[in-house]
Amino acid sequence: MNREAIPEVMKAAVLTKPWEIEIRELPVPEVGENEVLVKVMAVGVCGSDVHYYEHGRIGRFVVEKPIILGHECSGVVVATGERVSRVKVGDRVAVEPGVPCGTCDYCKQGRYNLCPDVSFLATPPVDGAFVQYIKHREDFLYPIPDHLSFEEAALIEPFSVGIHAARRAGLTPGSTVAIMGMGPVGLMAVVAARAFGASTIIATDLVPKRLAAAEKLGATHTVHILERQPEEAIREITGGEGVDVAFETAGHPKALQSALASVRRGGKLSIVGLPPQDLIELNVPLIADRELDIFGVFRYANVYPQAIRFLSSGLADVRELVTDRYPLEGTRDALERARTQKEKSVKVFVYPNGLPE
Amino acid sequence: MNREAIPEVMKAAVLTKPWEIEIRELPVPEVGENEVLVKVMAVGVCGSDVHYYEHGRIGRFVVEKPIILGHECSGVVVATGERVSRVKVGDRVAVEPGVPCGTCDYCKQGRYNLCPDVSFLATPPVDGAFVQYIKHREDFLYPIPDHLSFEEAALIEPFSVGIHAARRAGLTPGSTVAIMGMGPVGLMAVVAARAFGASTIIATDLVPKRLAAAEKLGATHTVHILERQPEEAIREITGGEGVDVAFETAGHPKALQSALASVRRGGKLSIVGLPPQDLIELNVPLIADRELDIFGVFRYANVYPQAIRFLSSGLADVRELVTDRYPLEGTRDALERARTQKEKSVKVFVYPNGLPE
Amino acid sequence: MNREAIPEVMKAAVLTKPWEIEIRELPVPEVGENEVLVKVMAVGVCGSDVHYYEHGRIGRFVVEKPIILGHECSGVVVATGERVSRVKVGDRVAVEPGVPCGTCDYCKQGRYNLCPDVSFLATPPVDGAFVQYIKHREDFLYPIPDHLSFEEAALIEPFSVGIHAARRAGLTPGSTVAIMGMGPVGLMAVVAARAFGASTIIATDLVPKRLAAAEKLGATHTVHILERQPEEAIREITGGEGVDVAFETAGHPKALQSALASVRRGGKLSIVGLPPQDLIELNVPLIADRELDIFGVFRYANVYPQAIRFLSSGLADVRELVTDRYPLEGTRDALERARTQKEKSVKVFVYPNGLPE
Amino acid sequence: MNREAIPEVMKAAVLTKPWEIEIRELPVPEVGENEVLVKVMAVGVCGSDVHYYEHGRIGRFVVEKPIILGHECSGVVVATGERVSRVKVGDRVAVEPGVPCGTCDYCKQGRYNLCPDVSFLATPPVDGAFVQYIKHREDFLYPIPDHLSFEEAALIEPFSVGIHAARRAGLTPGSTVAIMGMGPVGLMAVVAARAFGASTIIATDLVPKRLAAAEKLGATHTVHILERQPEEAIREITGGEGVDVAFETAGHPKALQSALASVRRGGKLSIVGLPPQDLIELNVPLIADRELDIFGVFRYANVYPQAIRFLSSGLADVRELVTDRYPLEGTRDALERARTQKEKSVKVFVYPNGLPE
Repeated sequence: MNREAIPEVMKAAVLTKPWEIEIRELPVPEVGENEVLVKVMAVGVCGSDVHYYEHGRIGRFVVEKPIILGHECSGVVVATGERVSRVKVGDRVAVEPGVPCGTCDYCKQGRYNLCPDVSFLATPPVDGAFVQYIKHREDFLYPIPDHLSFEEAALIEPFSVGIHAARRAGLTPGSTVAIMGMGPVGLMAVVAARAFGASTIIATDLVPKRLAAAEKLGATHTVHILERQPEEAIREITGGEGVDVAFETAGHPKALQSALASVRRGGKLSIVGLPPQDLIELNVPLIADRELDIFGVFRYANVYPQAIRFLSSGLADVRELVTDRYPLEGTRDALERARTQKEKSVKVFVYPNGLPE
Repeated sequence: MNREAIPEVMKAAVLTKPWEIEIRELPVPEVGENEVLVKVMAVGVCGSDVHYYEHGRIGRFVVEKPIILGHECSGVVVATGERVSRVKVGDRVAVEPGVPCGTCDYCKQGRYNLCPDVSFLATPPVDGAFVQYIKHREDFLYPIPDHLSFEEAALIEPFSVGIHAARRAGLTPGSTVAIMGMGPVGLMAVVAARAFGASTIIATDLVPKRLAAAEKLGATHTVHILERQPEEAIREITGGEGVDVAFETAGHPKALQSALASVRRGGKLSIVGLPPQDLIELNVPLIADRELDIFGVFRYANVYPQAIRFLSSGLADVRELVTDRYPLEGTRDALERARTQKEKSVKVFVYPNGLPE
Repeated sequence: MNREAIPEVMKAAVLTKPWEIEIRELPVPEVGENEVLVKVMAVGVCGSDVHYYEHGRIGRFVVEKPIILGHECSGVVVATGERVSRVKVGDRVAVEPGVPCGTCDYCKQGRYNLCPDVSFLATPPVDGAFVQYIKHREDFLYPIPDHLSFEEAALIEPFSVGIHAARRAGLTPGSTVAIMGMGPVGLMAVVAARAFGASTIIATDLVPKRLAAAEKLGATHTVHILERQPEEAIREITGGEGVDVAFETAGHPKALQSALASVRRGGKLSIVGLPPQDLIELNVPLIADRELDIFGVFRYANVYPQAIRFLSSGLADVRELVTDRYPLEGTRDALERARTQKEKSVKVFVYPNGLPE
Repeated sequence: MNREAIPEVMKAAVLTKPWEIEIRELPVPEVGENEVLVKVMAVGVCGSDVHYYEHGRIGRFVVEKPIILGHECSGVVVATGERVSRVKVGDRVAVEPGVPCGTCDYCKQGRYNLCPDVSFLATPPVDGAFVQYIKHREDFLYPIPDHLSFEEAALIEPFSVGIHAARRAGLTPGSTVAIMGMGPVGLMAVVAARAFGASTIIATDLVPKRLAAAEKLGATHTVHILERQPEEAIREITGGEGVDVAFETAGHPKALQSALASVRRGGKLSIVGLPPQDLIELNVPLIADRELDIFGVFRYANVYPQAIRFLSSGLADVRELVTDRYPLEGTRDALERARTQKEKSVKVFVYPNGLPE
């Protein structure tokens, strides 16, 4: 193992039970032959982190023992296993948080996001990134250029969801797109739509701050859903046609119903947001009559290199999404901020090795 | 116009208002330069015909003046317009009932089934095929080989829906398929699944006669939905995996919910059946979590030549589906039979120019 | 027919035999019910026009009687047939020069560029656009926004070839692309690659003026093929990998061989250029071993609306391509200029109704 | 490691230099944690084995030290590493001979056949299957049903090439297909075309025995290329149209030229055969003018489960292809037989653990 001076212990923010985060000292992990030790520099707080913090579970994933949350992260390579060749000590890297088995049918067919044996940061029982060091398999680390910040590298994660949604829907340049919900995933989907050459990008939400962010990132139109019925507004913007493609990222039944109603005949819909309830009423005759395509979107696969290329090219300045910054000791505050201040915050970040200057 | 001896008047079964069919004498139509006069030999009664007969409307299509129903048909070419070159007098032909505009974006892009200006037999205000002669544009007539019967040629229409559903879902050889509902469309979808090389074809229904027909046509497994919960049965048959592809043809909320639950991770669902109500509760988290593809299916495009090739090759003996036969004068009885005897009848046929020998 | 004051006769530049262009007076055409009379404002000279002018034929297309050349054109609607609804008198329009039959299998399947019965401007025996007025079917005319010039509208034609090549090759955003040959089609392919989000666009040619034009239009790298072996240069630019996609537009055997050798394993190649000879030596083991995809490109289908959207969005300033301008009377000079001055000219234009101010 | 009684040494047929095969005693390999020890029961002789035997190299792959040839094989699991879960001792298995790295971009994207670090049986420096036992990673072993013979399981390998060629070309049911060359790969491509529902399958070769085999396996037409010009014959069979899809498997320039000329406008060609020379003259204007798709085919990926399903379903009786059988000691004779008796032999097999009864 090639290595720099690395401490033997490190600090971690551990969820011991719902609502409780403890800062603990843990041994710095040893890396295996294909693994890399990453000094974690920036971690975005995701809705799923907040959900585990509040409820101790998401669907079939249950927190049964203390867990470290956080999976949108980036850092610096500080040690590498013997057989590591893709990255070297000193590399600044984006971390793709899910490491699949590589041997099941889904993995072999290129849909490794569906691997049943994936090990995904901060998904029980796997620990995440609110910690000073993590080890990770080398092939899920991606060196970033100097001019990309650690925040941008961490934002590659939600960006990847948007890119995957765009790919699933076969988004082509010149398309008209509607995106429901301007949380971080929705906002990054705006950037993805732009990267895919969409000519009209309509963003909907009920928080003005988020609609303003959408505009800065490239939305050509915004719809405040309390002021305007979104499908009506979308029909109007598209000359009565409806959009070629809609993305639902809000995880809300009404947003999904609006998205469905907003798509033109023969158009496409990517479902990204997970609603809290299982059953949602959908207009099924409309799906058949308009011959729509609907695509479920679960995480992403094979998008990190493309995502890094997009952000590196200066497509959009996503750093503005970062509204709040906390040191590792403030992880609980960060989670609370993300949980309670949706009107004021867009993206909350934690910096396990110190706030950026 | 090249022509054989053709009468000046003909008999037609006209729906004058819901529940009333009148046999009237009408002038035999004159054909335009690209049109063909077809002597109608066999017409299948479709659920949509029964629906117009009962309710006088289907969704946005309303019967506002007397209309001739019937759109699953075949016949013999008896006259051709001056510029007709694809068929000639004497040809036995399958009739593709929808003639699109040919000039809108959908038509130009190969999705002519979505043409907003399509003229479709027996869809108000266009008259259909319960009549002795119809005129039709030459490029929607397909000569059939001698060994194919007129019934088979008429059954190409529901078969086309099944083929289109299979194409939309990208059905590949060796796939496992579940088909919900064994009405004529579901039964023809069994044949389509077989034509596309599916290795496992699971058919569900609650009428034993229809499940038996499914088996004859190529279903490898049948599930009686009152005896067995279909998704459970399907999971069991597929070794716990779920099917690669499901088709919903029943137009029933439970069938759709079962179809959705029966698809494996990363699998696909074609929605063919139109349920009576607009809103149906669907398990949306499952769509996202399993990353499913869902495809609405509206009629078909570019399938007649393939369909004729399949039936001509002896893939399946679909003639057994024809359970009841009526002359033109019996059109009302035919519609009543189809409406009321779902346990005994599979497909009811009308023969405007006399019953076959 | 709705109409403005239109003269009864018009001037046309007629190719009477190779090397001879005569300015003749002809009657202004009458339009049919679906047709539109277009006052031709700008016509680009294409290599095929020059070829007919020199040789009187291209492959199977032979000039057997006097013909009007020119097919890259735009103009103003001055009269419309009775059933025309898509455009109105006064509309400024781009003209898609090929009008297919709309009823053959290729047309119905959305590949109307393969229609065997297409009527294509300036392809014998169909007359073209070096004339004051042409009639055209309404569904192949596309209104353009005010801020797009007639030259830009005419350049939609070669641009469409580039877009079609990009679609055929499934060009995805973030791709690396090499384009061989910087004639007008190659240059417009640079714009297409940019519209499709290519991150690296490598242009090759041997004329410095054309390489400079490529850079202005969005090429990220240029290779002068007399100074640098193009496949070597491309390997170097792509870090040894080769490009994801190559376009051959030069119609030259060496360019094609270079294009093939420049594509990475699993990459794609669109063949756009028509070489003068039939047989070209290609490295076939390389095609198999690298598992390449090769796509022939013949004209385009379903791209005009997208192309207009791209140019309207200010993606690139293509007006600079227009290096030479002639009135209708100068058509022969225009053809000679295009034929002989490839180092100085990029695109030569003819203006049948007077030079622009 | 779970294991049965296994000897410590085994016999192997080793190519020591071109033309020389030695039977040696070697230690039976020890398996790693994800590996499986397979008792090799049947091995087909492939053209590449013969080529290494004659020339000591194929392109960039050079035999630099003694090597065991043979890669089309099947056997019985006799020991499994600690973490093996997919197969168990006693399973009869088909062996997919190429084990990719699982971590490069090609692997992650589902095109693992393009992995630059693949370890492929009998491709220098990796040993192959003319030996009593091999070890192999568990995820490239596929249990076969009882009714499938070891020969059939070994033939899955060339069959996979045919299936991959069919998938690459997007072969749809009802298509017309021409297959050039009836060596084992061409013959198995006939079976693949049938599995994919091709309605017309035209086989070409110059050995009557091979054409007869093609017919038994499902070819609907055969063309003896010394008696009939193949493209002419193919045009005639397809009513002047040309085929939807052609496969070139002969590795011969003329076969490739014929294949190209035989494809209809808008059709597709898979190049499977590797010609001895690098440069072959191809009609490039025809590729562009007919807008053909050409696909290189290199081995296969993700096809074994589908291939096993096809053969298990009784699609075709491929056992007849096995014309010659040798024990391990006869490996040299087997290679000579395959090399010299192309008129009499179709597929030669070696049985490292004794001839079948």
